[in-house]
Amino acid sequence: MTIKVAIAGARGKMGREAVNTVLKRDGMELVAALDYKYVGESLAELEIFSPNLNVPIYTDLTNLIQETTPDVLIDLTNPQSVYEHTKVALLHNVRPVVGTTGFTEEQLAELTHLAEEQQVGCIIAPNFAIGAILMMKFAQEAAKYLPNVEIIEMHHDRKLDAPSGTGVKTAQMIREVREGRKQGHPSEHETIDGARGADFDGMRIHSVRLPGLVAHQQVLFGGEGQLLTIRHDSFNRESFMDGVMYCVETVMSLDRLVYGLENIL
Amino acid sequence: MTIKVAIAGARGKMGREAVNTVLKRDGMELVAALDYKYVGESLAELEIFSPNLNVPIYTDLTNLIQETTPDVLIDLTNPQSVYEHTKVALLHNVRPVVGTTGFTEEQLAELTHLAEEQQVGCIIAPNFAIGAILMMKFAQEAAKYLPNVEIIEMHHDRKLDAPSGTGVKTAQMIREVREGRKQGHPSEHETIDGARGADFDGMRIHSVRLPGLVAHQQVLFGGEGQLLTIRHDSFNRESFMDGVMYCVETVMSLDRLVYGLENIL
Amino acid sequence: MTIKVAIAGARGKMGREAVNTVLKRDGMELVAALDYKYVGESLAELEIFSPNLNVPIYTDLTNLIQETTPDVLIDLTNPQSVYEHTKVALLHNVRPVVGTTGFTEEQLAELTHLAEEQQVGCIIAPNFAIGAILMMKFAQEAAKYLPNVEIIEMHHDRKLDAPSGTGVKTAQMIREVREGRKQGHPSEHETIDGARGADFDGMRIHSVRLPGLVAHQQVLFGGEGQLLTIRHDSFNRESFMDGVMYCVETVMSLDRLVYGLENIL
Amino acid sequence: MTIKVAIAGARGKMGREAVNTVLKRDGMELVAALDYKYVGESLAELEIFSPNLNVPIYTDLTNLIQETTPDVLIDLTNPQSVYEHTKVALLHNVRPVVGTTGFTEEQLAELTHLAEEQQVGCIIAPNFAIGAILMMKFAQEAAKYLPNVEIIEMHHDRKLDAPSGTGVKTAQMIREVREGRKQGHPSEHETIDGARGADFDGMRIHSVRLPGLVAHQQVLFGGEGQLLTIRHDSFNRESFMDGVMYCVETVMSLDRLVYGLENIL
Repeated sequence: MTIKVAIAGARGKMGREAVNTVLKRDGMELVAALDYKYVGESLAELEIFSPNLNVPIYTDLTNLIQETTPDVLIDLTNPQSVYEHTKVALLHNVRPVVGTTGFTEEQLAELTHLAEEQQVGCIIAPNFAIGAILMMKFAQEAAKYLPNVEIIEMHHDRKLDAPSGTGVKTAQMIREVREGRKQGHPSEHETIDGARGADFDGMRIHSVRLPGLVAHQQVLFGGEGQLLTIRHDSFNRESFMDGVMYCVETVMSLDRLVYGLENIL
Repeated sequence: MTIKVAIAGARGKMGREAVNTVLKRDGMELVAALDYKYVGESLAELEIFSPNLNVPIYTDLTNLIQETTPDVLIDLTNPQSVYEHTKVALLHNVRPVVGTTGFTEEQLAELTHLAEEQQVGCIIAPNFAIGAILMMKFAQEAAKYLPNVEIIEMHHDRKLDAPSGTGVKTAQMIREVREGRKQGHPSEHETIDGARGADFDGMRIHSVRLPGLVAHQQVLFGGEGQLLTIRHDSFNRESFMDGVMYCVETVMSLDRLVYGLENIL
Repeated sequence: MTIKVAIAGARGKMGREAVNTVLKRDGMELVAALDYKYVGESLAELEIFSPNLNVPIYTDLTNLIQETTPDVLIDLTNPQSVYEHTKVALLHNVRPVVGTTGFTEEQLAELTHLAEEQQVGCIIAPNFAIGAILMMKFAQEAAKYLPNVEIIEMHHDRKLDAPSGTGVKTAQMIREVREGRKQGHPSEHETIDGARGADFDGMRIHSVRLPGLVAHQQVLFGGEGQLLTIRHDSFNRESFMDGVMYCVETVMSLDRLVYGLENIL
Repeated sequence: MTIKVAIAGARGKMGREAVNTVLKRDGMELVAALDYKYVGESLAELEIFSPNLNVPIYTDLTNLIQETTPDVLIDLTNPQSVYEHTKVALLHNVRPVVGTTGFTEEQLAELTHLAEEQQVGCIIAPNFAIGAILMMKFAQEAAKYLPNVEIIEMHHDRKLDAPSGTGVKTAQMIREVREGRKQGHPSEHETIDGARGADFDGMRIHSVRLPGLVAHQQVLFGGEGQLLTIRHDSFNRESFMDGVMYCVETVMSLDRLVYGLENIL
């Protein structure tokens, strides 16, 4: 069986990757693109795509669904539009695969309820990098046996916030399974402020920022005479596509909303 | 409740570590040592131990059990004696925690049967390093989603065999969950023999040997635009003690034989 | 003073990077492009460049030099044309910065002689990644004190040859400063062929190939109780541009040919 | 020629290592030990040494020198005694190899002057780990070309101060060769205090503390599209002995005082 896929946000950086990945993938067919302009045209007419990519562009999702009957809608647009798209898709029994963090608690609750009512699969994933998700899952598991943990996350020097979202998420997941503890020597002291990093429930998070870096994280677990390290390196945007494709295939057999790739790995 | 522990092989390197670790551990009591000589003496009389370590030494396990009624027997002796010890212990409802690889298939089958019959817990673990076991478990799990794998194991240069036992064991565990595949470029070629390492079901294993190294391994998983690395460093013998203590505590609530620490983590 | 730069091979992948980097660089001006076609046009007319990039294209280097008087010629074309370009440039007192490995010994000798005669600077560099060059230099230095060395080089799985050129180059540089020695245990043996990697003068080189990887190498030096590691990660093509720009600036004060970036760092 | 060596502080942890290393070393002979007690006895009489180690113990350094005429005095005692020892040794033309950081500026100046006057070699090294010294030297060199630097130092969790002495020393050596610069994004902000580590002249130093770790440091240099990493792992005390032996051999051909192993590598 071929999975018929529509993509919202096809012209964006992630969207273009998704278009190219779906086109190369056995068992998938790209049937439509959703955009806020270019209605009635095809991707072939946009110079960023190959001139024989005859995939129609719609600005109205209901129209798109009625005319091209996709199985899955990959949504890579902004938080503003994605909530409406997801609702419309679910109501028409099209399975959304969504990569955003922008939903409110209420919106998530409503979409969860709607997916259940319709018995339609839906995956919302703030992070599609399978390797990063596995890193976080393994870190959570390891902390049960080796509760002394430090996190080093390393990113390019154009990143504004420290620690990174993934760094904090990892620490949160570990906090769920271990008792908070003060790490390091009880009398340790910093001769230069900040040396011991950010303190999150006793775990220390260190944020490295350098030109050339992309997105990297290692989680270190110390035990008597040993060290366990779980590391993920994301070298470029393509690292998300393995996860998106995995979700497109997996959402076909779901009948409810799943939030977070870690819950289906 | 205090767990009463006897140790076979207390004078060996691992044994001495075990003695010291049990002594420091809350909830454990060292009640006896099993040896092939020094019967009637106590550990205090051997100069390698503290002069107030009044723990009696036995050469006969049945005697030891009758007089000191241990809950658990930690056995760190050689493969020759360990099979007999384990059988005797099980018959007397003492739970063995055994760190050896020297059993034959038949012996293992017999001990498994005996433990079941007696409904007595027994743990046999070729490797007590919790971090190493977690590395192997996580590697097996990761290979399901990221099937391109290479293993780099690094040891001191007095090690005779390559790849290491842990390296091969890791590859075996991964083989159970992924289809064999030729990795690398189909037309790749070595300009110097051996550059691409040992081929195990398509996975490549690389063995580094250098003075100064202890025992280290990393498992690398490549995906589009990303790399997941799981690494374990064993810096000294103490790395085994966390695992031994975990087994002593866990064996108390088992009623059968478990082979391999990975099956109780 | 502004350095006037011409670029040969501007339309190639490296060439485009070079164009963009020169344009952004203080103290440099892009005055011309050398191509085998598009004579009389400007880079602005090629759709891969910005439409206001009014840099003239020449097919004849002598013409280019006479009309635009560049100080430096960055040559990123193929080995076939680069020898002629370099000779012409030197004869007209334009300093070549060349990134190729394709010269014969005779050609190199002739160009070296010509540069000396003309007292014109010239840099020929098989590798412009400053970080990689530093790694090799440091590795050579470290081997004097810690002569037990292993090299792990890691590349994407579309690479055909193993070990990599940089891996072999590093080993060659180390061989110059240390006595060959058999590493590892005298009686070590491989239970699977290739585990111990490629043997180069006693050093072992291990080649990892995985999807997602770009170009990475680590050189490990073992000593009693310690390990020194020098590692270089090249994440993308931009890693060469720092080196190209360094050469453009450095060649201005040279009066002879230098082969290899390592000789001016 | 055999180098005759005396050791001050032979009973300490470092001292015992030094005794054993000198005994195994070709071209060296252990002729005496300096102690504050046990005068007239030999190392053989102390139970921590082999019973046939007939090396005499002295409490007076002048006596020791007159009776055993050592070429080199390895001094591993405390800062209080080491200054006097060094002065006496130099006055008697015995070359001191000293591993302490406890000298005042005045003491150092005086000893430097005395060594010059006597034309006797003397090496004072706060750190004997050759690998660590090479790491610092290479880091200083690399910073000239890749000035964006972060340091991650990792130690066992019984360490009191952060950052480590070696971490700060490395940053100081880099500061000597690069202009101070604010690293990271100009508008970066910490959502948890300390995430970006300690700020030393713009470089960031991160201190990881975990059980199981020994003493490790990596220095990271970011450039466009690349990362250079220089890492040192010290697994145990033996890592210092290669450096001590190198100094004993090197001090024989010096005629002045050298402070810091980095100045003779």
